Amino acid sequence: MPGIAEAFKRVLVGRPMRTDRLATATLPKRLALPVFSSDAWSSVAYAPDEILLTLSLAGLAALTVSPWVGLAVVVVMMTVVASYRQTVRAYPSGGGDYEVVSTNLGPRAGVTVASALLVDYALTVAVSISSAVQYLAATVPATAEHTTAIAVGTVVVLAVINLRGVRESGRTMAVPGYLFMGAIGLLACVGFVKEATGTLEPAVSASLEVAPEAGFEQGLVGAAGALLVLRAFSSGSAALTGVEAINNGVPAFKKPRARNAAATLLLLGLIGSAMLLSMLHLARATDVRFVQDPATQLLRDGEPVGATYRQDPVVGQVAATVFDGVPVLYVLVTVATGIVLVLAANTAFNGFPSLGSVLARDGYLPRQLHTRGDRLAYSNGIIALAVAAGLLVFAFDAQVTFLIQLYIVGVFTSFTLSQLGMVRHWTGLLRVESRPEKRARMRRSRAINGFGCLLTGLVLVVVLVTKLTHGAWLTVVLLAVLYAGMFGVRRHYDRVAQRLVVPDLARAKALPARVHGIVLVSRLHQPSMRAIAYARATRPSTLEAVTVDVDSQDTERLRQAWDEAELPVPLTVLASPYREVTRPVVDYVRSVRRASPRDLVVVFVPEYVVSRWWEQLLHNQSALRLKGRLLFTPGVVMASVPWQLDQVDELDKPADPL
Amino acid sequence: MPGIAEAFKRVLVGRPMRTDRLATATLPKRLALPVFSSDAWSSVAYAPDEILLTLSLAGLAALTVSPWVGLAVVVVMMTVVASYRQTVRAYPSGGGDYEVVSTNLGPRAGVTVASALLVDYALTVAVSISSAVQYLAATVPATAEHTTAIAVGTVVVLAVINLRGVRESGRTMAVPGYLFMGAIGLLACVGFVKEATGTLEPAVSASLEVAPEAGFEQGLVGAAGALLVLRAFSSGSAALTGVEAINNGVPAFKKPRARNAAATLLLLGLIGSAMLLSMLHLARATDVRFVQDPATQLLRDGEPVGATYRQDPVVGQVAATVFDGVPVLYVLVTVATGIVLVLAANTAFNGFPSLGSVLARDGYLPRQLHTRGDRLAYSNGIIALAVAAGLLVFAFDAQVTFLIQLYIVGVFTSFTLSQLGMVRHWTGLLRVESRPEKRARMRRSRAINGFGCLLTGLVLVVVLVTKLTHGAWLTVVLLAVLYAGMFGVRRHYDRVAQRLVVPDLARAKALPARVHGIVLVSRLHQPSMRAIAYARATRPSTLEAVTVDVDSQDTERLRQAWDEAELPVPLTVLASPYREVTRPVVDYVRSVRRASPRDLVVVFVPEYVVSRWWEQLLHNQSALRLKGRLLFTPGVVMASVPWQLDQVDELDKPADPL
Repeated sequence: MPGIAEAFKRVLVGRPMRTDRLATATLPKRLALPVFSSDAWSSVAYAPDEILLTLSLAGLAALTVSPWVGLAVVVVMMTVVASYRQTVRAYPSGGGDYEVVSTNLGPRAGVTVASALLVDYALTVAVSISSAVQYLAATVPATAEHTTAIAVGTVVVLAVINLRGVRESGRTMAVPGYLFMGAIGLLACVGFVKEATGTLEPAVSASLEVAPEAGFEQGLVGAAGALLVLRAFSSGSAALTGVEAINNGVPAFKKPRARNAAATLLLLGLIGSAMLLSMLHLARATDVRFVQDPATQLLRDGEPVGATYRQDPVVGQVAATVFDGVPVLYVLVTVATGIVLVLAANTAFNGFPSLGSVLARDGYLPRQLHTRGDRLAYSNGIIALAVAAGLLVFAFDAQVTFLIQLYIVGVFTSFTLSQLGMVRHWTGLLRVESRPEKRARMRRSRAINGFGCLLTGLVLVVVLVTKLTHGAWLTVVLLAVLYAGMFGVRRHYDRVAQRLVVPDLARAKALPARVHGIVLVSRLHQPSMRAIAYARATRPSTLEAVTVDVDSQDTERLRQAWDEAELPVPLTVLASPYREVTRPVVDYVRSVRRASPRDLVVVFVPEYVVSRWWEQLLHNQSALRLKGRLLFTPGVVMASVPWQLDQVDELDKPADPL
Repeated sequence: MPGIAEAFKRVLVGRPMRTDRLATATLPKRLALPVFSSDAWSSVAYAPDEILLTLSLAGLAALTVSPWVGLAVVVVMMTVVASYRQTVRAYPSGGGDYEVVSTNLGPRAGVTVASALLVDYALTVAVSISSAVQYLAATVPATAEHTTAIAVGTVVVLAVINLRGVRESGRTMAVPGYLFMGAIGLLACVGFVKEATGTLEPAVSASLEVAPEAGFEQGLVGAAGALLVLRAFSSGSAALTGVEAINNGVPAFKKPRARNAAATLLLLGLIGSAMLLSMLHLARATDVRFVQDPATQLLRDGEPVGATYRQDPVVGQVAATVFDGVPVLYVLVTVATGIVLVLAANTAFNGFPSLGSVLARDGYLPRQLHTRGDRLAYSNGIIALAVAAGLLVFAFDAQVTFLIQLYIVGVFTSFTLSQLGMVRHWTGLLRVESRPEKRARMRRSRAINGFGCLLTGLVLVVVLVTKLTHGAWLTVVLLAVLYAGMFGVRRHYDRVAQRLVVPDLARAKALPARVHGIVLVSRLHQPSMRAIAYARATRPSTLEAVTVDVDSQDTERLRQAWDEAELPVPLTVLASPYREVTRPVVDYVRSVRRASPRDLVVVFVPEYVVSRWWEQLLHNQSALRLKGRLLFTPGVVMASVPWQLDQVDELDKPADPL
């Protein structure tokens, strides 16, 4: 069984890698850009959709503000990029927001950010994969009925790829990242040229009317209208997710790490903004319709279009319109978008495990997340992320719009706290720095981070106001649970560490007065004989054999065999009116310990080992249960004396017969 | 966690019982009759249905033969009863058919019978419970949509009742057994009186026509007609299931066991036959219609009645007709029938575990089935039966008609082999017996068993011919799998037993030349210090500490602490390029064993024990994995040195400081 499991694992993740291969597993800028930017870029695939569907609640006229909403998102994005460029230079170690915040604002703020980031990584995977299967359905309509299953399957495949190791993912993921950039770039250029020459046709959905929701018959007016615009902005802010990925991944860059990362970050922001704005512009120019519930909200000749209408994502609709008559280019855009969404999910598979490892190092998460697996990836973190994201996709049926509601709270929580931490950081440095040109640079950085903090804080308030009742409350609950859980884990580790310290070396080095050996026997067979011989070989101060009287015939038979064998070890029989084995032995060992509390008791347990797992099922597991119970009895050592059924032991032919 | 599980188990099954309460857990005849007969009697609830639905395939006219089919079933039943009365006198030890057959026909035939019985016990539970939920649906129509769930739930409840112990089941189950007898008796009497006085009305379903199947438009004619009658007879033979229950349960009778059991058996047969015949007669007299698929086979005014028609079981329809206008008596019959069906399932919960225990004693099933649980019931057998029956109910959607197809093959396989075994038994006794009156009695017994063997063998052939393609093939496959599995288990136990024998006592008593102690350390904390002290206290010939270099910084820290502590034990550092702990240690231990194959190696593993199960999750389980691997290495003893985080150990204050 272990052999099969091991072989299966090898096929899946590849052969183990030596620790010294770790140093080489970093990425040059040209690979890092697509790997780390795909998260931010890929939001072009769903951010326009979210803006349009929110504004559409107020009817068609409301769509005129969509480019302005997009512009607001881009302003926030470039602010955040500028802020993080300061951060990667100041903290090139890859702890990212968590490191910045816990260093400057203390562990409580640090763990808050960490909770927010962990939740967001899981949501990044869930949202990106769910969006990707929508693009798949736009290209291959037959898959539309199995979106949830395909999405969960993709999460699993991504996890396996990442379990195979950092380096391979970098190379595998770079090409399609550039492909997406090229596809969207081509789409934008052709679209703009057509628009300028007046040959841009309206989209297929342009002929449909949009039924405004109750209360919005007059369009975007009054407080409700303003709130709707803010909600559209909140949803559009999903475009900012993933900007922090570089920040957490600096150690994966080639040296000079900080400078390369900052340059990559700027490119990420510029390219992302350009893509978002051009898609929003072309969607306006081609009159694309995109609503939350097309069956009832879209009207054809005054009637709802009904459940048979299939609504493609905005980028898909724009591509279909611009590349009308050239289906190969349409397919290029949707396929590239789908793949880059998968890449975005992959970014989280880089970020989550390394953050988990840092948190485990600091004692906030189980230690298992800290160690690298066979292939130098943080295997346990990868598996944890895959499980969390899989559950989210499953629970929300791979519906992007629902998942988006949970998404943005965490992102802006960490943005705001991170920038606040950076402001503190610069203030602290300014206190000790005297050189004027350095001080000027620090002041400039602090101003950038301060502005970033204010703006992201404002967005966080907007997001909370507009999203809390739409599902963001669930994220807030999740954050609180994670926060409490992490401090619980930390408290446990602290308590253990404190108890493990050796308070008095001389006392700890002292030996127990005497050793009392107890050999458990049920029958006088080879394993028992070996256990007795081994127990005698360790020369305890006193040695006795103990059996439990479960079946009186068996016990009598053992007693006779014992007398015949003339073993120089006394046999004690324990009564067991309830036919148990464990309790009488544990009680007896406790009574021995009570009688002479300064003696060490060593319990020798003969075990016979069969070679196949199913054979193990055919034997009572009393030895295992007994050892489990004795673990909780102080001052007792349990010695398993295994006897391998199918192997020959040299010790069976000893040189020194008695 | 173990505390909660333990408390839950206590609430469910009650407090443990002492072994010496076992002797009192037997049943007097008046309790044994309802407990052991319910299986046979309860088939009155479904055997008429199966006869009618099979004959109905040839249209209404075919129903005239139904009492004759019933009579044939009764003849077989009384033959089997007469045969088994010989068996319980000859074999009063409760091994039943299995004991009879394996003693007289050898282990292969014995295991064949055992397979057949095990499968039939599971099917008894599945069929009875499925039929019971049909009666429930006849009384409470709202339950008709949840039959499978209710059936599976009932199996679970039965298992729990049986886990609570033998004695309680006997008393709890006796009252409703008599209630059923009374209810059916009253129904028969009132029905016969009404018939004699000419006041018996036709049943509600009497107005419906039955559409014959293709090929049977002319009724029961030709070979097809004969085969159909034989099929009806096969299905009706389900009434014989459970006759062997007494045979397996003789030890549960009060003394004189054999005589009480034989008397009970005769009563069982007479009462059961009377009930079956009267129900079949009244069903004819009231023109009850019962078909396999009422929606299409039943016609009202020439049109199928459709899916909304609800078809009640035959006994239910008879009761509704005879007790027309007295609904309380109708409810009495259906409720009593439902309960006795549950009792029938309970019979299997007596038979399966004790047969399982006998088979386990003989080495054909895992040993865990042999031991009695806390409450003196064979807990593991009860659980195994519940799982098997639950799966059958679930797989066949609680449909009696499908389950019946699987049922009867096994029953008649064991009947036939059992009677054959009895013939051998008497022949053997006749060879050594000389007293004429004894010989005459033996000859008479042999004649009875011989006739029983012939008749049941004939029925088995009929069943195989008429049922094999209708689902009985699945039973045959199951039997083959069980048969092969049981011999596989036996082979394993034989091999183990052979290897466990001590071939040379003097050699087995010899001690290994020297003991080489190895203490595993990762850090120099309390658990390691204790492990070192304990290891030294056992005074091995040589002792060394071993650590695995997973993280070079940690290793360096350990080395320094080691030097500072001035421990009189050398520290060996093992390289681990793949960041593993287990493999380097196992390899090292193997190399030590190779270097001096006659030495005993004792590996001391420090373990710290936390008190809550979730805390355990927060620690790497490397000790557990390591011990698992070392189990397979010959000549190695693993000594766990636990250190309880939350308990004080007297040994921490030793008398003998170094």
